[in-house]
Amino acid sequence: MPILTDISILYTCPLDGTQDHVSPIEDAAIAWSDGIITWVGPKEEMPAELSEGLAHSANGNVVIPGLIDCHTHLCFGGWRADEFEMRIKGQSYLEIARAGGGIRKTMRQTREATDEVLIEHGLGSLAGMASLGVTTVECKSGYGLSLEAELRQLRIYKQLLSLQPLELVSTFLGGHIVPPEYENDRDGYINLLCNELIPAVAEEGLAEFCDVFVEESAFVQVEAERILKTGQAFGLRSKLHVDQLSDGDGAALAARMDAMSADHLEYTTSAGMEAMAQAEVVGVCLPLATLYLGQQPMNARAFVQSGVCVAVATDFNPGSAPSYDLPLAMMLSCTLNQLTPAEALKGATIHAAKAIGREHLIGSIEVGKQADLALLNVLDVNDWMYHFRPNACTGTYIRGVSQN
Amino acid sequence: MPILTDISILYTCPLDGTQDHVSPIEDAAIAWSDGIITWVGPKEEMPAELSEGLAHSANGNVVIPGLIDCHTHLCFGGWRADEFEMRIKGQSYLEIARAGGGIRKTMRQTREATDEVLIEHGLGSLAGMASLGVTTVECKSGYGLSLEAELRQLRIYKQLLSLQPLELVSTFLGGHIVPPEYENDRDGYINLLCNELIPAVAEEGLAEFCDVFVEESAFVQVEAERILKTGQAFGLRSKLHVDQLSDGDGAALAARMDAMSADHLEYTTSAGMEAMAQAEVVGVCLPLATLYLGQQPMNARAFVQSGVCVAVATDFNPGSAPSYDLPLAMMLSCTLNQLTPAEALKGATIHAAKAIGREHLIGSIEVGKQADLALLNVLDVNDWMYHFRPNACTGTYIRGVSQN
Repeated sequence: MPILTDISILYTCPLDGTQDHVSPIEDAAIAWSDGIITWVGPKEEMPAELSEGLAHSANGNVVIPGLIDCHTHLCFGGWRADEFEMRIKGQSYLEIARAGGGIRKTMRQTREATDEVLIEHGLGSLAGMASLGVTTVECKSGYGLSLEAELRQLRIYKQLLSLQPLELVSTFLGGHIVPPEYENDRDGYINLLCNELIPAVAEEGLAEFCDVFVEESAFVQVEAERILKTGQAFGLRSKLHVDQLSDGDGAALAARMDAMSADHLEYTTSAGMEAMAQAEVVGVCLPLATLYLGQQPMNARAFVQSGVCVAVATDFNPGSAPSYDLPLAMMLSCTLNQLTPAEALKGATIHAAKAIGREHLIGSIEVGKQADLALLNVLDVNDWMYHFRPNACTGTYIRGVSQN
Repeated sequence: MPILTDISILYTCPLDGTQDHVSPIEDAAIAWSDGIITWVGPKEEMPAELSEGLAHSANGNVVIPGLIDCHTHLCFGGWRADEFEMRIKGQSYLEIARAGGGIRKTMRQTREATDEVLIEHGLGSLAGMASLGVTTVECKSGYGLSLEAELRQLRIYKQLLSLQPLELVSTFLGGHIVPPEYENDRDGYINLLCNELIPAVAEEGLAEFCDVFVEESAFVQVEAERILKTGQAFGLRSKLHVDQLSDGDGAALAARMDAMSADHLEYTTSAGMEAMAQAEVVGVCLPLATLYLGQQPMNARAFVQSGVCVAVATDFNPGSAPSYDLPLAMMLSCTLNQLTPAEALKGATIHAAKAIGREHLIGSIEVGKQADLALLNVLDVNDWMYHFRPNACTGTYIRGVSQN
């Protein structure tokens, strides 16, 4: 049975307790068998029979649960660096979208890209993520926006899952925007989603979640409800992009729809926060999008105080959040969204697991969970988030297997 | 004569022209001799005799001038991660300073640290910087704040210069705050600076610049003037920390004092910008400090439009900017301060060189300059700043010598 010792501090990050309850253990050890944790605690308390296992050393590093990026748009064609410069010079996200840029541009580039290009691109991003300590990634469709192109994007995630070690969790985001083909027939597109796409996704087992972008440039609440309810009827649990660019009362919608998570939440009111807390919807903080769009930041501190479980993710996409750097997103969740370092850690581990319905399998270092671990050359979690270095991760384990 | 070829795009970054005039050359080549650039241009125009030189390959990477971090507090003892959490929970920088934290705390920890600890710490930071493409670093004193402790900090920079390959440029910042010993005798401390410290620094050749922090918690204008004028009399050119936490009319002071640079500038008015443009004072943008303190960002876009040369630096220190990641500061200068990627590039190369009086030696890739280069695995400068990765630098040359 393999063991990992010489751990300066191990943050177990249990689901229970407050957002900053990360439950550190000094001079810790872990043992696992077949990729599942069988023992964790202070090294001096480790049973003698375990310490005869194959010993890995953490070299005095800090150990945390493998990071979970619970909101990405991993598969896309092309980049939109030109729009970055346009926004710097004063154009808004919505102005660029209306002029044919934004998600529509990426849709065109994704449709045009070959499978090979998309897979190579995805593998490159996943390798970069793994080097940062990430072990699980949620991946959305939503740049196909036709029957075939949406299914292709989700099938690419299946292929990517088989080609590299990170766990991928897929979300169907046909409800990203109305594609140009249906510009004058919104209902036609929603019929396509509900009558053909969602059934096809479910039948082929291509996604676990159904997500809708509720925003002026995307879908209104009544449309989102129809799409999400159809998804639920086919076994796809609900997620939502809400309140990003203005308050659309999206938090209440998420609560009403019993969503797994509501993401963005920059403009959510305290009533919305309370509704989410009541309905146990995870609030996903996406500070890279806030930074790149120059928006008002989500008040993550107030969400935590309202009793919402807050997760932190990158929103990796080629427009509003063109970075897969989850530790950077975590640092920004401290500086822009006023999470403490411990709260950000829980946000990118067990609360991120909860946002993708995996809290029983991953996200904390506890007996019975997968041995997904990240090793960090830092003093503690405060030092990690505060003294920001390009990459403090020195090693990653996925289901007990070292990826270095 | 060594040459570097297989460069996808080379950004020469000449001093002349607008802030975004970075003068790219596609499929470029560079030749140098004794560490000094002797030829640069499109590879097909390279003289035949040069192409017989010892050939290095950039492997299709982008090449930029070695980055210059023109504002750091490199040498310090201890960290202040606790204050990071205090600020997240609502305490202000000035409240923490008044309670004995902030610069005073780092002063105590720096005085207590041994030379060995400070040198080891500095070497670690410099190695991290070099891996990001940084080749020159400005280093301030200001955590000693006594005759012996200030001189020791500057002597440590001399030692660090001899122990590793990066160029270091030292600045005397005895005028950082009034140390506790002189709390009730401000004039006594300023007398110490002017009558003993500045003459000693000049005599031992320990610094090129004299800097003062003008702020409610530090020094007022009339005090700063006396310190800077004394520095000038001893051959130390002036720099200033101004208008960081409120508008202290510091830009006008910098213009009046003929300063090399004025740094921070978060609250500077348009009148101040025009005074700086007239006096050709470089404006140094420090977005990490803005981010970590949650301040209003410097309006770098307006500075550029006013005709000020804007530089970008980290402000690396253990309190308000605890990261030495200059590419991150550059990305933030785009997202928070509205510089375009090309403007940020010029800000961390030739304009940073100008901020430390080295624009004739470094900061651009031109004949007669040092062959200080950084190689980047990116498509172009827009891609680099927009698709932010932990570290895109794949190689660094200092005076023509590869550091990899």
